[in-house]
Amino acid sequence: MLETVATGHQAKVSAERGAERSLLSQVPLLSELPVQDLTRIEQQCRYRRFTADELIVDRDSPSTDLLFLVRGQVRIVNYSMSGREITYEELTSGAFLGEISAIDGAPRSTGVMAIEDSLVLALPRSVFLDLCTRYPNLALKVMQRLAAMVRAAQDRILDLSTLAAQSRVQAELLRQAQAHRNRPNAAIIEPIPVHSDIASRVSTTRETVARVLNDLARKGILERCKGALVIHDMRRLQSMVSDVRG
Amino acid sequence: MLETVATGHQAKVSAERGAERSLLSQVPLLSELPVQDLTRIEQQCRYRRFTADELIVDRDSPSTDLLFLVRGQVRIVNYSMSGREITYEELTSGAFLGEISAIDGAPRSTGVMAIEDSLVLALPRSVFLDLCTRYPNLALKVMQRLAAMVRAAQDRILDLSTLAAQSRVQAELLRQAQAHRNRPNAAIIEPIPVHSDIASRVSTTRETVARVLNDLARKGILERCKGALVIHDMRRLQSMVSDVRG
Repeated sequence: MLETVATGHQAKVSAERGAERSLLSQVPLLSELPVQDLTRIEQQCRYRRFTADELIVDRDSPSTDLLFLVRGQVRIVNYSMSGREITYEELTSGAFLGEISAIDGAPRSTGVMAIEDSLVLALPRSVFLDLCTRYPNLALKVMQRLAAMVRAAQDRILDLSTLAAQSRVQAELLRQAQAHRNRPNAAIIEPIPVHSDIASRVSTTRETVARVLNDLARKGILERCKGALVIHDMRRLQSMVSDVRG
Repeated sequence: MLETVATGHQAKVSAERGAERSLLSQVPLLSELPVQDLTRIEQQCRYRRFTADELIVDRDSPSTDLLFLVRGQVRIVNYSMSGREITYEELTSGAFLGEISAIDGAPRSTGVMAIEDSLVLALPRSVFLDLCTRYPNLALKVMQRLAAMVRAAQDRILDLSTLAAQSRVQAELLRQAQAHRNRPNAAIIEPIPVHSDIASRVSTTRETVARVLNDLARKGILERCKGALVIHDMRRLQSMVSDVRG
């Protein structure tokens, strides 16, 4: 699972990026650090490459490294006893992850799955904690990230506790539409979201997602076009969600 | 809602605690700070008293103070459109709260309700952020608290997504029993938990809670006695939960 690229391979990675620039310069968490510190930190990282659909972190595993996603895309997930996937979020290049275990030293609280081929740099917990102590602004950025995670989780708990699955699917479509809005009342979501991905994000079944999409298409609120989901009436979708969510 | 006790009243509070000892000395977050710093921080706090069932913080309100719960007990909550209460957790004397808005400056993500008469000290956001910068260990403690909140929320999302309400009630009873365990296989939960409180913690109805308790009583796993809920067979309760949760 963890294909650690050892010293010999690091030379190859270094060549890939050019000698003078650290791969970590693309990580906003570290943006205020002097270049020489970035180089020193990178030297303390292990390089790991993962292919799409490969497991990067297993839930309950004892590793406590802070992980930098230098290239690629990953999904933060857990699985039920029956194998159902629950997606917490997806992260793209430049993100850091694994901060929960890096902070408290306890086993991993979730799994992490590569969605695309990904390059991950793993920084030992002790180095991360030392950085937090020496760079208060870095510690504040970690806190801001954790605060955002808590807010998202609190909202999801409220939605799961009070909204029907159908409304949660509508709310998720609205969220994606808002991220892709291209006119005041319209949005093009591209590529078309996979039903099982939406289902995993709002904890329902693919069948429910398909049913809600068909229903919204029938009402003229959205349309499936070649390679894209076009939202024609965001205001109406918004009002359906507001009616139940407040 | 926010009965701020102004300067005149602060004298009364000071007299109550004795001149030399800060009320904040009971707050573990600040335990490493020198006494003179505690006194200075306390001088920058506003004192607020709340009676049981009074709202301390309203969701979406723009306040960003960090709050120290010096005395009392509070519940972190949100409400659905229909008025249903969702409890995130309960905090007791010595806890700090309101850290999410104190970190990111955005409006409150949840409400806070006094369960008992409570004394709260409100520290301005700017002073809190300055403390995080000057005391790296304090920043680490805040991170540890946030990490614990994220773990609890991730587990709850997984439970809400994959367990039936009946199993969530069993899991909550097991959690409370583990906190009150007095023999290897038995526990006395005192006072008897209120049905609506359990319902609010696991996002179900009082009726479901009552049904699960009756079912467990019929099976001899628990018994309602005068003023206490006695769990007679924790192993069996544990195995019922493990069967569905893994």
